Amino acid sequence: MYLQALREIQSEGVSVVSSEEFGQRVDASAAQFRKDLSYIGELGRPGVGYDVAALILRIAEILGLTQPHPLVLVGAGRLGAALCSYPGFAEQGFRIAAVFDNDPTKMGRRLGENVIRDIADLPRVNAALGCRMGIVAVPGCVARDVVQAMVEAGIGWILNFAPVAVGAPKGATIRQVDLTHQLEVLSYYMTVAKHGTDPEA
Amino acid sequence: MYLQALREIQSEGVSVVSSEEFGQRVDASAAQFRKDLSYIGELGRPGVGYDVAALILRIAEILGLTQPHPLVLVGAGRLGAALCSYPGFAEQGFRIAAVFDNDPTKMGRRLGENVIRDIADLPRVNAALGCRMGIVAVPGCVARDVVQAMVEAGIGWILNFAPVAVGAPKGATIRQVDLTHQLEVLSYYMTVAKHGTDPEA
Repeated sequence: MYLQALREIQSEGVSVVSSEEFGQRVDASAAQFRKDLSYIGELGRPGVGYDVAALILRIAEILGLTQPHPLVLVGAGRLGAALCSYPGFAEQGFRIAAVFDNDPTKMGRRLGENVIRDIADLPRVNAALGCRMGIVAVPGCVARDVVQAMVEAGIGWILNFAPVAVGAPKGATIRQVDLTHQLEVLSYYMTVAKHGTDPEA
Repeated sequence: MYLQALREIQSEGVSVVSSEEFGQRVDASAAQFRKDLSYIGELGRPGVGYDVAALILRIAEILGLTQPHPLVLVGAGRLGAALCSYPGFAEQGFRIAAVFDNDPTKMGRRLGENVIRDIADLPRVNAALGCRMGIVAVPGCVARDVVQAMVEAGIGWILNFAPVAVGAPKGATIRQVDLTHQLEVLSYYMTVAKHGTDPEA
């Protein structure tokens, strides 16, 4: 979140930012920002502020974002197509290097810069590509099998958009993006607000 | 997360679940599960387990999910189209009741069950619909203006897919879904793993 906000600030031509200005931007307190940044070193100058470019570089280093990450995408449906054209990915060094599906009518078609390949070819193709990160955008009923196949093909860091929670196979890391879950959280806030209680309290 | 896992368990025909079985399913400890559930009442029976249907209903009540939520979607691009066809939404009572865009070439076309409308008509249309929840799937450069317009039209609970953090206008609640952010978290885990440290430690 900080990295994103800092990039926005940089794109506006600002080179030094105070913790107060920054806190307003991200809806965090200046104290919280200073505390969080204290974990990664002495980057601010009292009375002056933080060097935006230096801070971006430091956070990007910590997140492993100073080198590009090629990704494998499994699932060439509507969500997969939307992810292929999501501008934020390429901007931050995440490039979709190969797209797979199990639907024969999709194989061979283009999706963005990629040709859709047969999921059965994943092990062979990724042996050549060497991708270690991947995105799952398949129906929930096949998500577990797809994750297992990806991990066996060497893809151990996976972002799962399928609407089922998939446990991580041994040695793998899975982040679940459940779009419905976010709406359920909003629904909760709305319900609490109706009953006159502050959900943030 | 619990609700999703419980629904999966229910769909498999299981009516009673122990905290140990459940913990394995969601990658949480049985103790954590029992602790979390203790906040919402005495729902488990020692030595027997939890009634799956009763637990689903109780969590759904707390989340305000026992009644349907009509939604407004702003942004009829690829991501908006993918969200319109995302199966999880309708299954959980989230129905997209109206779709808006500012592109004249899109207006009047169909997107799923909806006709794409002019964003300028949002206040008038939502005065009739009365939607209080909405989804933003527009480019980052217009996200703030779109959120402001939605809040003014009575849509105070917003899920923002635009790749910029938008502060909540007064009285509104915004949840940010930053797809790139999730990849950045994965990148961090991968970086830490390379250096031989367990990121979960």
